[in-house]
Amino acid sequence: MGAYTLGEIASRVEGTVRGDSSRTVSGIKPLDQAGPEDLSFVAHPRYRHAAEGSRAAGLIVAEEGIAPGRNLILVKNPYLALAAAMDLFYERAPQAVLGEGTRIGRDVSIGPFVVTGRDCSIGDRAALLPGVVLGDDVRIGEDTVLHPGVVVYSRSVLGARVTVHASSVIGSDGFGYAEAAGARAKIPQVGNVVIEDEVEIGACTTIDRATFGSTIVGRGAKIDNLVQIGHNVSIGEGSVLVAQSGIAGSTRLGRGVIVAGQSGAAGHLLLGDHSVVGAKSAVLQDLPAGSFVVGHPAADHRDWKRSQAALRRLPDLLRAVARLERAVGQGGGEPPMAKPVRPAARRSRRRVRVRRRAGT
Amino acid sequence: MGAYTLGEIASRVEGTVRGDSSRTVSGIKPLDQAGPEDLSFVAHPRYRHAAEGSRAAGLIVAEEGIAPGRNLILVKNPYLALAAAMDLFYERAPQAVLGEGTRIGRDVSIGPFVVTGRDCSIGDRAALLPGVVLGDDVRIGEDTVLHPGVVVYSRSVLGARVTVHASSVIGSDGFGYAEAAGARAKIPQVGNVVIEDEVEIGACTTIDRATFGSTIVGRGAKIDNLVQIGHNVSIGEGSVLVAQSGIAGSTRLGRGVIVAGQSGAAGHLLLGDHSVVGAKSAVLQDLPAGSFVVGHPAADHRDWKRSQAALRRLPDLLRAVARLERAVGQGGGEPPMAKPVRPAARRSRRRVRVRRRAGT
Amino acid sequence: MGAYTLGEIASRVEGTVRGDSSRTVSGIKPLDQAGPEDLSFVAHPRYRHAAEGSRAAGLIVAEEGIAPGRNLILVKNPYLALAAAMDLFYERAPQAVLGEGTRIGRDVSIGPFVVTGRDCSIGDRAALLPGVVLGDDVRIGEDTVLHPGVVVYSRSVLGARVTVHASSVIGSDGFGYAEAAGARAKIPQVGNVVIEDEVEIGACTTIDRATFGSTIVGRGAKIDNLVQIGHNVSIGEGSVLVAQSGIAGSTRLGRGVIVAGQSGAAGHLLLGDHSVVGAKSAVLQDLPAGSFVVGHPAADHRDWKRSQAALRRLPDLLRAVARLERAVGQGGGEPPMAKPVRPAARRSRRRVRVRRRAGT
Repeated sequence: MGAYTLGEIASRVEGTVRGDSSRTVSGIKPLDQAGPEDLSFVAHPRYRHAAEGSRAAGLIVAEEGIAPGRNLILVKNPYLALAAAMDLFYERAPQAVLGEGTRIGRDVSIGPFVVTGRDCSIGDRAALLPGVVLGDDVRIGEDTVLHPGVVVYSRSVLGARVTVHASSVIGSDGFGYAEAAGARAKIPQVGNVVIEDEVEIGACTTIDRATFGSTIVGRGAKIDNLVQIGHNVSIGEGSVLVAQSGIAGSTRLGRGVIVAGQSGAAGHLLLGDHSVVGAKSAVLQDLPAGSFVVGHPAADHRDWKRSQAALRRLPDLLRAVARLERAVGQGGGEPPMAKPVRPAARRSRRRVRVRRRAGT
Repeated sequence: MGAYTLGEIASRVEGTVRGDSSRTVSGIKPLDQAGPEDLSFVAHPRYRHAAEGSRAAGLIVAEEGIAPGRNLILVKNPYLALAAAMDLFYERAPQAVLGEGTRIGRDVSIGPFVVTGRDCSIGDRAALLPGVVLGDDVRIGEDTVLHPGVVVYSRSVLGARVTVHASSVIGSDGFGYAEAAGARAKIPQVGNVVIEDEVEIGACTTIDRATFGSTIVGRGAKIDNLVQIGHNVSIGEGSVLVAQSGIAGSTRLGRGVIVAGQSGAAGHLLLGDHSVVGAKSAVLQDLPAGSFVVGHPAADHRDWKRSQAALRRLPDLLRAVARLERAVGQGGGEPPMAKPVRPAARRSRRRVRVRRRAGT
Repeated sequence: MGAYTLGEIASRVEGTVRGDSSRTVSGIKPLDQAGPEDLSFVAHPRYRHAAEGSRAAGLIVAEEGIAPGRNLILVKNPYLALAAAMDLFYERAPQAVLGEGTRIGRDVSIGPFVVTGRDCSIGDRAALLPGVVLGDDVRIGEDTVLHPGVVVYSRSVLGARVTVHASSVIGSDGFGYAEAAGARAKIPQVGNVVIEDEVEIGACTTIDRATFGSTIVGRGAKIDNLVQIGHNVSIGEGSVLVAQSGIAGSTRLGRGVIVAGQSGAAGHLLLGDHSVVGAKSAVLQDLPAGSFVVGHPAADHRDWKRSQAALRRLPDLLRAVARLERAVGQGGGEPPMAKPVRPAARRSRRRVRVRRRAGT
């Protein structure tokens, strides 16, 4: 962590400086990615050309002639020296297991019992807390924090300044099956999940990877605990999904959409920009931008309130209509609303008694 | 992994072959379970009889006379040789902790930071990904994959070709309490969970173990993310439970039942074969086979649609009935629907105003 | 585990007893917390005064003069001796990582791959099963069991005899944002979570920490799987929250409240003592003590049942009213209920057809 002079690093890796031993570096990167504050390395003379073009402040090399005029740390074995030098630049719990080809930025914090697959890339200052598991080829942006026990499946991409709380799962298999000849066959889910910058994801939340392409959570979106996001869903920038809500496969949310707690949206819908879904609602159709809906099925919130208020008066209304039918003497026969028009097996006994009284 | 000749194994364990050193084996099993492609071992002369009856292709033994005529690998200490030989046949992360008596099939993959209790059994080609924890006496079938962080409590049985996604929990304590003298006492949950072959279970899903007997998930069932399955529930073959649905204790689902997202079923019910529960519904009574229900309480989906459409017209209906009452001049007094029959404290002001206008 | 004489411990730590070498101790605690069955230690002469006041049965010291007349184990380095002695008293998986300053009670069980932060305190006989992660300054009471993969964030306090099932998350960041100038800013959540004695928490359940103060789960409360408890919520003693229910921020539940499965309560409400919320309901207003409510919005359960029964008769009622309007010949024109009074874009075609028939 922090920065070191080439001289300090040379003594750590048992090498010799050629050039400016007081030059300071604060990380290690491959030749093509290194900037003026980074150390890089030339593992073989065939990378000589790349070394010439590199912006690195210094190079770990085995031969002085490989990059004349550059600041060099001469060592016998650049690979071993590289490994020793990397230990200077990031904390790594000795109990973590990092897959081959995984690249770690500077000032990264990796907790005990973390596992990464092959070819992952962890941005500067990111933190993988204890027990985090990454699959293969996962990319984690700068300053992103994965809390304990988070699991990120292969090929997922998380942006910068993302937070994922404990035990959440990103990139698991979408729930897609094809029915054929009576059997249910799994549709391979070959896509991935892309979480853009500054997204916050709560605890025990699950985001499935796409069948093809990407499940996307847009920049600055806030996702609470125990939320389910299906495969190929797209969540617009700055949207908010409150706890225990769920979005079914392929539905797209515009920008600034708010889905309140325990609500859901069916699959293949479009929820327009800045639409709001009230708590415990079920969206079953597209919503225009700026909608505010509630209920199951979700309807305009004013209509829903009116309907619910009216619903409480419905038992009285039934009685009133039965009275009216008797008063009007409609159709000569027994008035329809005075008897059970569509007998329901489970009508409560109380209900029946009430009606009988009304019928006397 | 893969297969080895007895000769190759002998050189690994510093033993000598008696018999066919080119004979190939691909796993190690106890005498009574070994087949013609397995190596076995005789740890003590008292197992001589079992050795004679074993179908193993070869035996690790300390004495040549113990199994005359068989292919033998003669070693000084059969236990040590066994341990060395087992390392050939499965990957085991050095950081995994396997309980005493746990038996590992061939070509099993065990990730870092996996923990198993005592006397577990892991089938051939199964994979326990990083951080999986098994209790005691857990059985995992062939080709079954447990994704990172899955926890399986003691005595659970998982079949072959099962997939469980990350952070799911199988076999935790059912939620059963007895109320006595004002205090709530936990009912011990001594049953287990049985997951049959080819079941797929999503991420962050919880399946409670039975009070007695077993909570059962039938062959080929597909269970999505964040699903709750209570104690003593039985899920029929090929059933599908979509994300965030929940089944309360002791309810049984027939074959091919579909429960859509965010739906639930109360306890002690029977959902008949091929019944379908629409999204965000609450099943409160038994369903005959082939039902298609929606709503809370769940009712026939056509009735539900009609009721919901009618509900949206209810505010108008209230006004219409008030008009009719006035027109009919019913009962001489003030018409019942023109005033709040059952005053509700929370009736909205808007509602009241509307009615007053109608009442003038 | 168990108890040891001072003589046994002295031989373990290569020390010498001064005093009663047959005196039995069963744990190690700091000077001010040690009781007559505990061993303690004096790391420096400046703690001489505290040593005199300590109730410990014996002291590990470097100098005989430090606590005259007490039972002493004289060693060269009290810190090293302490570490060796502690290994006698609790099981600790060699693969666990315990933060600096973390104090472990007696007979504590710590599984493999457990991680604790700094300054945690684990009560006697508590069990941290494999993969449990504690943040900094977490307090765990006596006999409390954390199942595999449980994550407890910093500063959380769990009482005695608490059980938390696998993969649950306690103390994660509350979901609080302030909107300013179009951007959403996270409100720092500086409070904690307090779980009182004898609480049971299911699997994959999430309890957010308070913005200020504490999120509280009262003594003896039972919380099922996949439950969400928001920041600053207070759950009264003996309350029960069934699976997949959720309580939004700052809502308070009295004593003995029951919230059935898949139900929720909005934020900033008060649910009175012994109130009951039926399954899949949404509480949107305060509930008096002893309430029994159902539905969305949650209403008295009898009213809800009546309304739901009446709702099923609503399509018939619409037809009946249309008939009445025609019979009464109200207003001379076309009767209001015989045509769509408030045209709804999405009224189903079937509905329209039915009405047309009624209108002929």
